[in-house]
Amino acid sequence: MKNLAYFNGKIGELDEIYIPFNDRSHWFGDGVYDATSAANHIPFALADHVDRFFNSARMVDIKLTMTKEELSDLLRELTLKVDAPQTQVYWHVTRGTASRNHTFPEGVPSNLWVMIRPYPQTDLSKREKAITVEDTRFFHCNVKTLNLLPNVLAAEKAKQAGCEEAIFHRGERVTECAHSNVHILKDGVFQTAPLDNLILPGIARKHLIYHCEKLGIPVREEPFTVAQMMDADEVLVSSASTFGVALSQIDGQPVGGKAPALLEKIQHAVMHEFLMETKQV
Amino acid sequence: MKNLAYFNGKIGELDEIYIPFNDRSHWFGDGVYDATSAANHIPFALADHVDRFFNSARMVDIKLTMTKEELSDLLRELTLKVDAPQTQVYWHVTRGTASRNHTFPEGVPSNLWVMIRPYPQTDLSKREKAITVEDTRFFHCNVKTLNLLPNVLAAEKAKQAGCEEAIFHRGERVTECAHSNVHILKDGVFQTAPLDNLILPGIARKHLIYHCEKLGIPVREEPFTVAQMMDADEVLVSSASTFGVALSQIDGQPVGGKAPALLEKIQHAVMHEFLMETKQV
Repeated sequence: MKNLAYFNGKIGELDEIYIPFNDRSHWFGDGVYDATSAANHIPFALADHVDRFFNSARMVDIKLTMTKEELSDLLRELTLKVDAPQTQVYWHVTRGTASRNHTFPEGVPSNLWVMIRPYPQTDLSKREKAITVEDTRFFHCNVKTLNLLPNVLAAEKAKQAGCEEAIFHRGERVTECAHSNVHILKDGVFQTAPLDNLILPGIARKHLIYHCEKLGIPVREEPFTVAQMMDADEVLVSSASTFGVALSQIDGQPVGGKAPALLEKIQHAVMHEFLMETKQV
Repeated sequence: MKNLAYFNGKIGELDEIYIPFNDRSHWFGDGVYDATSAANHIPFALADHVDRFFNSARMVDIKLTMTKEELSDLLRELTLKVDAPQTQVYWHVTRGTASRNHTFPEGVPSNLWVMIRPYPQTDLSKREKAITVEDTRFFHCNVKTLNLLPNVLAAEKAKQAGCEEAIFHRGERVTECAHSNVHILKDGVFQTAPLDNLILPGIARKHLIYHCEKLGIPVREEPFTVAQMMDADEVLVSSASTFGVALSQIDGQPVGGKAPALLEKIQHAVMHEFLMETKQV
């Protein structure tokens, strides 16, 4: 298949699968998701992503109809079906199909959706550009929900400015980006915002921290400001498809580029893990 | 028909209409909606609702494929098809069907959805109960978007407490409810939160203000605190299906009940407008 859509056991290509009118994603964005990258038909860090997915569902009280093992097996199986060397494996659960009513429907099973499509990893040897945007999102950013309209608006604003990302800040404090976490390198230290309700606990973030620690690079999980970011030696963004790409420009101002060797060391470590796990080396 | 679903011109009952997998509501809740009550197959205050809908769409940069007049005509026509004395007329627009990508799809028309179903007006002679909940929503509450997961969680919390509504507050300041605006009567004054990005510009709220002014009741559009609400003579909530129902209890404490004659005067005025416009008197 050239791509794949799955809805409660039904499988087809993306333009072949249809969703019931009363799915609760339609009225409320009432669901949570997760996604990872696959290469050689092997989803990367699947256990981490499935764990986070179950945690997101638990935090908004959505009951899954599969165990973690069953879901992992399903995702691995579906990933085999799409004919592409690198794919995105995306899945979400919605709070079932029921007449529109804010309160939870009773006796209604949740709906499981999967999407798999060709999706290349970001080339880490390139540098990207970003803008900053006031973070007007809700206070549930630690949950990977389908309520992403502010992220959509920020991402479009970045695109209109010729940039790849939008960096959110609440006042002076940098939180994360429209679709990635953001980190800085300063004086040999890797600094990233702490895990609270303002940012998503990124899996790539977790792997970056792991590799920094293994490499003996001190890690500081503390908020940083826009000014600190502009003055950092390097600024990196990370997501399931972008394991730590450096920025060259924020709001039209040059940033980073002052610790390229340290940056490359970290990028190499995390990419090596990805290549090993997906049997590319 | 016993109910009606409409998607880009296709019409059926709610369990007959299906949505393409790649509609952007699925990935991002990327859409805005509006809704009104109909009686005798006549949607109430339709011009107000269609105006607000176009304004919501404009604020998130979604282009509609119909004019206000065409949409109003369509909604009136569809309302005639559902065999029920009182219905809810709900519609929304999503940013089209396109492969998942945060930025806006190019050259893709928006999707228009309509749902009409039997829905009785709230009986204003009864009083309801509410809880208070910290307002953890985003700062786009003036836009009627499909990003409603915090509202869902709050409404469910209210239901679990045996209540009909959840009243949001940011710190001490009351904003609005999970699915209505909230107002107080104190010393003969009607007080309601001002229009900013923390509350939805409710159409019922607008009509309540209009009728208060017509009745010579002073209106104050100023924020009030939780403490002021608990101490008010009356607390009212309003929405498209609830034109100003009074509360008898908040968080288990008795509230209001100290200005029943003034309350009834306001309720009567707004209900009379509804009954007149929908040709029930």
